[in-house]
Amino acid sequence: MTTWLENAWYVAAWDSEVDSTPLARTICGVPMMMYRKLDRAVVAMRDACPHRMLPLSMGLREGDSIRCKYHGLKLGPDGVAQEMPLTGERVNTRICAETFVTHERHRFVWVWIGDKDKADPALIPDLWPCSANGWTFDGGYYHVACDYRLMIDNLMDLTHETYVHSGSIGQPEILEAPLECKTEGDTVYLWRWMPAIEAPPFWRGALKQDCPVDRWQICQFLLPSSVMIDVGVAPVGAGATLENHDQGVRGMVVDFMTPESETTHHYFWGMARNFDVDDAGFTARFKAQQGGVFAEDKEILEAQQNAIQANPDLKLNAYSIDQGGVRARKIIEKAIRRQQEANR
Amino acid sequence: MTTWLENAWYVAAWDSEVDSTPLARTICGVPMMMYRKLDRAVVAMRDACPHRMLPLSMGLREGDSIRCKYHGLKLGPDGVAQEMPLTGERVNTRICAETFVTHERHRFVWVWIGDKDKADPALIPDLWPCSANGWTFDGGYYHVACDYRLMIDNLMDLTHETYVHSGSIGQPEILEAPLECKTEGDTVYLWRWMPAIEAPPFWRGALKQDCPVDRWQICQFLLPSSVMIDVGVAPVGAGATLENHDQGVRGMVVDFMTPESETTHHYFWGMARNFDVDDAGFTARFKAQQGGVFAEDKEILEAQQNAIQANPDLKLNAYSIDQGGVRARKIIEKAIRRQQEANR
Amino acid sequence: MTTWLENAWYVAAWDSEVDSTPLARTICGVPMMMYRKLDRAVVAMRDACPHRMLPLSMGLREGDSIRCKYHGLKLGPDGVAQEMPLTGERVNTRICAETFVTHERHRFVWVWIGDKDKADPALIPDLWPCSANGWTFDGGYYHVACDYRLMIDNLMDLTHETYVHSGSIGQPEILEAPLECKTEGDTVYLWRWMPAIEAPPFWRGALKQDCPVDRWQICQFLLPSSVMIDVGVAPVGAGATLENHDQGVRGMVVDFMTPESETTHHYFWGMARNFDVDDAGFTARFKAQQGGVFAEDKEILEAQQNAIQANPDLKLNAYSIDQGGVRARKIIEKAIRRQQEANR
Repeated sequence: MTTWLENAWYVAAWDSEVDSTPLARTICGVPMMMYRKLDRAVVAMRDACPHRMLPLSMGLREGDSIRCKYHGLKLGPDGVAQEMPLTGERVNTRICAETFVTHERHRFVWVWIGDKDKADPALIPDLWPCSANGWTFDGGYYHVACDYRLMIDNLMDLTHETYVHSGSIGQPEILEAPLECKTEGDTVYLWRWMPAIEAPPFWRGALKQDCPVDRWQICQFLLPSSVMIDVGVAPVGAGATLENHDQGVRGMVVDFMTPESETTHHYFWGMARNFDVDDAGFTARFKAQQGGVFAEDKEILEAQQNAIQANPDLKLNAYSIDQGGVRARKIIEKAIRRQQEANR
Repeated sequence: MTTWLENAWYVAAWDSEVDSTPLARTICGVPMMMYRKLDRAVVAMRDACPHRMLPLSMGLREGDSIRCKYHGLKLGPDGVAQEMPLTGERVNTRICAETFVTHERHRFVWVWIGDKDKADPALIPDLWPCSANGWTFDGGYYHVACDYRLMIDNLMDLTHETYVHSGSIGQPEILEAPLECKTEGDTVYLWRWMPAIEAPPFWRGALKQDCPVDRWQICQFLLPSSVMIDVGVAPVGAGATLENHDQGVRGMVVDFMTPESETTHHYFWGMARNFDVDDAGFTARFKAQQGGVFAEDKEILEAQQNAIQANPDLKLNAYSIDQGGVRARKIIEKAIRRQQEANR
Repeated sequence: MTTWLENAWYVAAWDSEVDSTPLARTICGVPMMMYRKLDRAVVAMRDACPHRMLPLSMGLREGDSIRCKYHGLKLGPDGVAQEMPLTGERVNTRICAETFVTHERHRFVWVWIGDKDKADPALIPDLWPCSANGWTFDGGYYHVACDYRLMIDNLMDLTHETYVHSGSIGQPEILEAPLECKTEGDTVYLWRWMPAIEAPPFWRGALKQDCPVDRWQICQFLLPSSVMIDVGVAPVGAGATLENHDQGVRGMVVDFMTPESETTHHYFWGMARNFDVDDAGFTARFKAQQGGVFAEDKEILEAQQNAIQANPDLKLNAYSIDQGGVRARKIIEKAIRRQQEANR
C-alpha cells in the first residue's frame, strides 16, 4: 500500500521540460522517461529496456522511436520492439516496454498512474488559472526530499509564512484575519477574507491605484495532490466576494506535488495572474522571488522529514491552523481506502 | 536493549560548547538540543517541535524560551507550549517537548538518560581532577564513528601506544613494567608502577629537576563510560605510592565516551594537571599534541569498526593486555542486566 | 547461497599490483590483504587482525610477517601469531588469521575460494595467451559496480559494440557475419568467421601487407568467470581455420571478472598479441585505447545494475544475440548446483 492515490493523474513535468531528448524521472515509484514525438505528443515509457534493462533515457531517438544504447533494440512510442539490428532474427514484438498514458494541460505533462483503461483526461484536476484566457502562468520545479504530504500540509497553512519566510513574504500584520475552512466533496478550502484594509505594496503596485481594498487568500486542495492559492485585492465597494472576486487584481499560486518515493517528491510550483499579463519582466522577477520563497520551504520540509525519521517514537500533532492539511490528508486516505475496497 | 547503561549521567557537551544558540547533538540515540537560559542554566530538549517535528535547534531564542522556526510555537525551558501565534485559540499546554535533566560539573554539561526521578547529581562520575583546587583542566571533542566500547578498550590498554602512536607518544622502553589490574565494585583499575627510573623528557621538564623518579600510569574505568588515566613522576624517596602520589608532578587524562548510536559516539577528552597550572602556553601546546594523539586513535578505531562490520563471521579476541577493557565491558553488561531485572 | 562458484580460482590482482606493502581487496565477499614475502611468494590473509580485528593491511611488514598497527600482534605468513610484544605472556598460537591459497600464473595473482584441500593449481583457467612464448600481454583493472555476470554477458556478446562503442571500435559493417555458438563441457564458444574480406585499418597495419584476409572473432567463456576473445586476420589462402589460425596476426582480449559483492566486481582486462611483441609503444597506445573502450562498458553496466535495482518487478530478457551470456550463466548455475549437491 502506497501513501499516494492510484488511478489518478500526476504532473510528470513542465511542458517545457520535455523535448526530443528523453527526460528521466521517477513518478510514484516508477522509473520513467519521457520524450516528444515529431508531432510533439509526449511518450512516457518505463526507463528500462525490456531486453537488458539499460535505462532507455540513455538511448538515441530515431524518428518517433527510441533505440537502446546497449544493443540497439528499437522501440516504438507504444513500447513495442520494432527492430533488433544485426541478429538475423525477426524481432519478437511481444517484448515491449511499459508505456504510460500522458496528457498535456495547463502547461504541464500529466501521467496516469494506475489502470490505463480508466485514464480519462476529464479527471485531470482543474488548475484552470494556468490556461485561462486573460491570465498568464509560469513557475519552476524543485526536487524535495520529503513525503509529498508534508508539502501539502505546508501549502494548506498560511501561518508558517511569518516564521519560515520572515526574510521575504512573511508579514505578521496581514495574517491576523480569522481562518475559515470547509470541505466540499474531495476539495478542501481554507481562507481568510480581509475587508477594507490598506493594500500592501505588492498589491498596490499591481492594482495601480491607492485605495482601501478587500483582500483574500483562499487555499484549495484538490485530489490527488495539488493546492491552488487564490490571492488578490479589489477596491472596497467593487463588489468582490469570497465566491466572485475578479473586480481587482488576482493571482493564483499553483502547486502540484508528485510523489517520487515515500520520502521524496517532485514539486511543481507556479504563479498565474490576471494583471500585467504581457509584462515578461514582471514574470521573471516574480518567478525569481517565488523560487526563493519555495527554497525556504524546501529547507524546512527536508529538515522536518529528517526529524521524523530520527524520532520514530514521536508523531505529528495538529492545531487548528493545521486543519487544512489534516482535512487534505483525510481525503487522500479515504480515496485510497475507497480504491482498495473497489479492488477487492 | 541498548549497548549502553540507562539511568546514568552522560557528558553531552563541554560547558563552553553550550550558549544561547541551540546546539544539536544526539545522545544515546535521542536527538537533543541544548541552550543556556539567561541565568546560564542549561536546557536540554528533544530536538523536534511537538507540533510538526521540525528540529527545535533551527528555532529562535526568546528570553528563556525557544520559538519553532516553522509555525512559531513557543516552548518554555520546561518544554511546555507557551504560545501559538495567530491562531486565535488558547495554546494547548499538554503539547510539550520532552526535556532532559542536566547538570554542570567538572567543566562538562551532563545529561541524565533514563527515569528523571532518579536523576541525582551525586551519581555523576567523580572526575575530580577536572575541577580540583590546584589543578587546571582543558581538552577537546571528537565525533568518532565507532561503538563507544571500542574507545573504552583503547583507553584501558596502554600497549597500543607503541604502535598507534609510534610517531608521537609511543615509547616502547617505558612500557616494560608489568601491568596489574583489579576490579573494585564497578570500577576497574589497570596500572604500571615504574620505580627508580630515569624521567623521560616530558616529565623531567615538568618536575624541573633531573633525578631518578618513581613513575606511574593508572587507568581507572568508571560507570557508565569514562576513563581517567593518572600519570606522573615523583623523585625517588619522596614517598610516592600507588595510593598516594602528589609528591611530584601529576597529570590526569580524562575521557568520557557518550554513545550517539550503536556505531558512533561523542568523545570528550582532556588533560588535568597539578603543575604549571597558570601556564596557558603549556596548556595550548599540550592540547594540540593530545588532539593529534587522539586523532591517531580515531583513525584506528573507525577502521576497526568498519572491519567488525565487514567481517561478521569473526569476533574480537582478548589477550591479557586487554583485561582492562574486558573487565570494563563486563561491568557495563552486568549493570545493564541489573537494571533490566529491576525493571521487570 | 552466492551468485558465484566456490572451490575455484579467482584473479585477486595483477602480479604488478602486489608488493611488500599490503594491498587490501575484498574477493568473493571476503576482505583480504595480500603482500609478497622476501622470496616474492604472495601471502593472502583475512584483512582483520585475529586479536581486535583492525585491518592487517594497515599493519607493518617485518620480514615475511605482518605486525598489526594496533597492538603489535605479529603474524607469520601462515597467519599464526608469532609475537605479542610487551605482554609478558607466551603468545597463543591458536590465535591466527585465516589465510588463502594463492598462485601466480599468466601475470595474475590467483586466490582459491573454498576448501583449501582442493586448491590445485592445475584448475586455474587456461588463459594461455597471457604467458605463451612469442606473445606479449598487458592490461588494466577497473572496479565495476555491477554483478560480475553482467560483465560476462557483455563480453559474450559482440553486438553491443555498435552502440556502446560507437565512438571507438564500433563498426556495423564488420558485424554482419552470422554468429555461431556452441557449448563444450563447461566452456562456451561464440564466434564469427569472416572469409575473404578487406582487412580493416588496424589489422592491415598489424599484418603489414594489403591483401584480402580471413577474419575471426571467437569468444570463449571459462569457469568460474573469464572470457577470452580471439581476434585476428590471416591472408586468404594461408590456410587459417576456426581451429587453427596462427598464419596471420592474432590478438586475445583476456578478461577476468572477480566478484567483490553481489553487486560489484573487480574487472581485470588485457590484450595478448603475437605480433609487434617488442613494440612497447604499440602496447602503451593499445592499452590506453582498450582502457577507454572498457570505460564505456563500465558506464553502461553500472547504469544497468542501477536499473535492475530500481525496477524490481522487471527481469532481464534474452534474444539470440545473448546466447553466449545465457549459456555462460547456465554453466555457472549448474556448477554451483553440482557443488551444493556434493556438499550435502
